[in-house]
Amino acid sequence: MTTDLPARRAKLRDDLIAAAEAAIATGGLSALKARALAEAAGCAVGAIYNVFPDLDALIFTVNARTLERLDEVLASTVRPGTDPETAMRRLALAYHGFSRSERRRWTAVFAHQIPDGATPPDWYLGVVGRLFRHIEAPLAELLPGSTAETRAGLARTLFSATHGIVSLGLEEKLGPAPDEVIAGALVVMTRSWVLGLPGAVAPR
Amino acid sequence: MTTDLPARRAKLRDDLIAAAEAAIATGGLSALKARALAEAAGCAVGAIYNVFPDLDALIFTVNARTLERLDEVLASTVRPGTDPETAMRRLALAYHGFSRSERRRWTAVFAHQIPDGATPPDWYLGVVGRLFRHIEAPLAELLPGSTAETRAGLARTLFSATHGIVSLGLEEKLGPAPDEVIAGALVVMTRSWVLGLPGAVAPR
Repeated sequence: MTTDLPARRAKLRDDLIAAAEAAIATGGLSALKARALAEAAGCAVGAIYNVFPDLDALIFTVNARTLERLDEVLASTVRPGTDPETAMRRLALAYHGFSRSERRRWTAVFAHQIPDGATPPDWYLGVVGRLFRHIEAPLAELLPGSTAETRAGLARTLFSATHGIVSLGLEEKLGPAPDEVIAGALVVMTRSWVLGLPGAVAPR
Repeated sequence: MTTDLPARRAKLRDDLIAAAEAAIATGGLSALKARALAEAAGCAVGAIYNVFPDLDALIFTVNARTLERLDEVLASTVRPGTDPETAMRRLALAYHGFSRSERRRWTAVFAHQIPDGATPPDWYLGVVGRLFRHIEAPLAELLPGSTAETRAGLARTLFSATHGIVSLGLEEKLGPAPDEVIAGALVVMTRSWVLGLPGAVAPR
């Protein structure tokens, strides 16, 4: 064991992140308890707060890692030169696949509640924002006259719409939703965007 | 006070529903505790389970009332004879308005977690399912050759997509989202559906 203080802090930080990821993967966000984390990381409960200001900061760190994993999946989903409809359909289906296979980690990203009026830290929103570039690329091809600002807003809208279809589907909030029904909904939805968005964003 | 047993049970049921609605409206679903409910309704904790099998059943009852209120709002939003684009835009904006003004009650509808593998009761899914008729009506006009089954599936998809835009927006999960940005996203989204769905559901 190293006696170098920065190295020990870095190791404790890594151990706490690993313990939090394992707790979330097993029991979801509600399974995250300071005492159990400290035990898993082999430290005192108070030592957690030497490396994270509070549990929310630890949760944001874990959730950012989940989003970075999603980012890698989306990046490997679409080759350059793919037509916009195929690209958007593959991205939506990859999001569905990721949400399904990383179910508890992915749920934690959206279930994490911070106090009313608080906002996520900027570095975290930066990780979120980088995801949208995957959707902005096919939008640039689909909407050649659009501004970057328009595409950024649309990317967020399409991500949110896709998320709604995937999350209400996986959680079966509206009734039974087999995987092929969710996938079919995403195929129709992305096709309707490709056909409809050029006219929808055009000045009237 | 009546000594008629069925009437007393009915009154206790109403009182518990009112207490649960008040608790959710004030503090959200996490504020719902059996002890506090019993106190508010003036009964013993055990008496709750004479009228509801468990707290989940009480929560489903409260959430169904929220959905029925949403149903009334949506029903008053669109007059017969409204064109499909206007109808779908108004429905989406009305959903946003309702979610905003009934924030905690509306959040409880989607935050209510039941045990893995359990499904909501059929009567509750019936209340959910009735909401979709508001979207099915403009879809019938937009897609005259479509089957009722296609329209039912699409209504669920469009509801889910709208919900994703509204919920990630209101919760600011992707960064700041002022109301006019959410509303603008819904306007573009519904317009893209109206322009794109006829081609998206056509056989290829």
